[in-house]
Amino acid sequence: MATTDAADITEEETEHMIERNCVVENENVVSSIDPKEMRAVILAGFGGINKLRVTKKTMPEPQQGEVKIRVKACGLNFVDLMVRQGNIDNPPKPPLIPGFECSGIVESIGESTQGFEIGDRVMAFVYYNAWAEVVCAPVDYVHKMPDKMTFQEAAAFSLNYVAAYMMLFEVANLREGMSVLVHSAGGSVGQAVAQLCSTVPNVTVFGIASCSKHVAIRDSVTHIFDRNGDYVQEVKKISPEGIDIVLDCLSGENTGKGLGLLKPLGAYVLYGASNMVTGETKSFFTIAKSWWQVEKVNPIKLYEENKVIAGFSLLNLLFKQGGRVRLKTVMDKLLFLYIQGKIKPVIDSLWALEEVKEAMQRIHDRGNVGKLILDVEKSPTPLMASDSTETSEAGEEEEDPEGDIDNKERMPFIQ
Amino acid sequence: MATTDAADITEEETEHMIERNCVVENENVVSSIDPKEMRAVILAGFGGINKLRVTKKTMPEPQQGEVKIRVKACGLNFVDLMVRQGNIDNPPKPPLIPGFECSGIVESIGESTQGFEIGDRVMAFVYYNAWAEVVCAPVDYVHKMPDKMTFQEAAAFSLNYVAAYMMLFEVANLREGMSVLVHSAGGSVGQAVAQLCSTVPNVTVFGIASCSKHVAIRDSVTHIFDRNGDYVQEVKKISPEGIDIVLDCLSGENTGKGLGLLKPLGAYVLYGASNMVTGETKSFFTIAKSWWQVEKVNPIKLYEENKVIAGFSLLNLLFKQGGRVRLKTVMDKLLFLYIQGKIKPVIDSLWALEEVKEAMQRIHDRGNVGKLILDVEKSPTPLMASDSTETSEAGEEEEDPEGDIDNKERMPFIQ
Repeated sequence: MATTDAADITEEETEHMIERNCVVENENVVSSIDPKEMRAVILAGFGGINKLRVTKKTMPEPQQGEVKIRVKACGLNFVDLMVRQGNIDNPPKPPLIPGFECSGIVESIGESTQGFEIGDRVMAFVYYNAWAEVVCAPVDYVHKMPDKMTFQEAAAFSLNYVAAYMMLFEVANLREGMSVLVHSAGGSVGQAVAQLCSTVPNVTVFGIASCSKHVAIRDSVTHIFDRNGDYVQEVKKISPEGIDIVLDCLSGENTGKGLGLLKPLGAYVLYGASNMVTGETKSFFTIAKSWWQVEKVNPIKLYEENKVIAGFSLLNLLFKQGGRVRLKTVMDKLLFLYIQGKIKPVIDSLWALEEVKEAMQRIHDRGNVGKLILDVEKSPTPLMASDSTETSEAGEEEEDPEGDIDNKERMPFIQ
Repeated sequence: MATTDAADITEEETEHMIERNCVVENENVVSSIDPKEMRAVILAGFGGINKLRVTKKTMPEPQQGEVKIRVKACGLNFVDLMVRQGNIDNPPKPPLIPGFECSGIVESIGESTQGFEIGDRVMAFVYYNAWAEVVCAPVDYVHKMPDKMTFQEAAAFSLNYVAAYMMLFEVANLREGMSVLVHSAGGSVGQAVAQLCSTVPNVTVFGIASCSKHVAIRDSVTHIFDRNGDYVQEVKKISPEGIDIVLDCLSGENTGKGLGLLKPLGAYVLYGASNMVTGETKSFFTIAKSWWQVEKVNPIKLYEENKVIAGFSLLNLLFKQGGRVRLKTVMDKLLFLYIQGKIKPVIDSLWALEEVKEAMQRIHDRGNVGKLILDVEKSPTPLMASDSTETSEAGEEEEDPEGDIDNKERMPFIQ
């Protein structure tokens, strides 16, 4: 990290394709030859997808209170796009390894560290550094996986379900008979919200999503509306008395619309600002403009209208505001619901680390239904001509063809 | 109501002191001679306390779905001051009978009205008109009193406990181990908040009140601070991690301070704006200035800080926003807590209808600890020289001396 020039790569990060320096073991386990190195996705500087690449990094070792995890799968979230663009509050200086959650197997344990054993199947929150073969994490952020949970499910679990649970039950106080409106209902948080709502009797879920996703998600919500249509009028037709809880990850004009749709004592929860991301990159000026364009709220208006407005950022809560102490109770409840079969992550697609650019483009284009997973053990799907409609099958081990890839695209392994 | 000139009194409202036209019955029951008339406090126009007087009004009769209540006691709240000043949103045109809550006995029942019988001891929310000998109210707003509850307690119960309960448990989601900061801790809502907090294990209550009230209320809260001191620094010393719930009836600079004191996921609830009331009367310009001086809140800042801001107006909820449907569940829970002895209204003082000006002045001066009650059956306490420290005793039936009262003040019956 001797340089902060985003375009440069330090000596530790010699870029090379994994196929050349790695061995393929049984069960598709791919690992580095040098035990002091690991593969990782690196963000060389803030900007477009060309700032992402797979490199070798020095193997991390666990400090006191940490476990070292051999990563199997990582979650890819919209916030990773915002990190890539530098479109977040106080980002660390690049180069950095992105990613806030992963699943894997405990490989070693730091000094004076209790609660885990080597070989434990775990999922973890991390403050960056998730998109790598190995991650070290403080034990407060690490949770054992239920036996029947797959690594892919575990990588899709932590961030989205904890966020959905806390918003619904700790911020907004969801109870029997209430109504919930969720934007990006087809996304991984949206699907977690819908599932958690179904654990409470008689909750009506209004989902907003692109028309292309309606068939895939219509069973998970009560009513579904087109994000490009006039959802306010549509919702009012069905529920003229308003909505109890509005969960918004978009911001912008949706804040005013959401507040307007609330029932008395209803709560609007802003948990993201993905409308700030329009192009592949974002200038500071545009960010500042988006910020100031957000309508500010007069508390006396809230008083007269009996309304609640809340903001929720799980990453800030966990990593900047001491929220880790709340985590265990929430995760225990969520794992109990998982074991009961009441919640189950919806996986959109699996991608090799080398496919992170395409994966990110898919989130950017809002093409996903459920979670995008970086599967550390997966080899990149062969590039195909862009007019191909063929999809590669699970477990295929094909060499990544070299040469010009400009007119080709990878098709991920779609679950 | 032929005229809307606030200073005029219509033919129905011939002003006269009750002692001249009423008979004193046994047990101090004072009632009008004419069964088609009743005594009531009237607000002739918005402004100072001189706009209030006791007059005769036509006896109301219950409509379908209503009960007619022979009133025993009425609650006096800070919002009544704001009504008097016209300092509320969309007030009705004066002349009007103020008052939003009372207790009494069901005297007759409207057509097709179920759930009550003549003779039932009840308490009721009303949209104005409470400060009178007789009130008619829709049954949704009327609740039977527990046997051991006095009429004075019942008149102190509805508005303050329902507000405190909804703010703590429906808006802010109070749970075990949390901390609550309440402004005006010595007021009737403040005392209800403190009592309800004590029904949840391990809740810390930070009360803010004038120093003169500290002795009276210090057992009801965990920590107490001077409202004129730097409470933010004092609270931070005790609880550097912040507060879970801040309940503010003052507004103004306390909004920013309250938000600043919140823990992550903490909720600031604004339930009044009594800082808007400074003098005895209020110009429109000053009101507008107060409104705009309230700091507006950027939702993205709430997002980054994980904070909740809520407004709560029980009167708007009940009478303008359909909130009556929520009332029964809340009142059932509160009455259960009352019967268990876990909550009990704190009565500051009892006043005759004729003493409403002095009662209002006491609220304005923030002299009360707990609730001020207008006791319909109470005769005015004799006026005394202002240097007198003597307090009249309960049940005294003395004639209100006529003549110059400028240098005299009534001392209420203090419980």
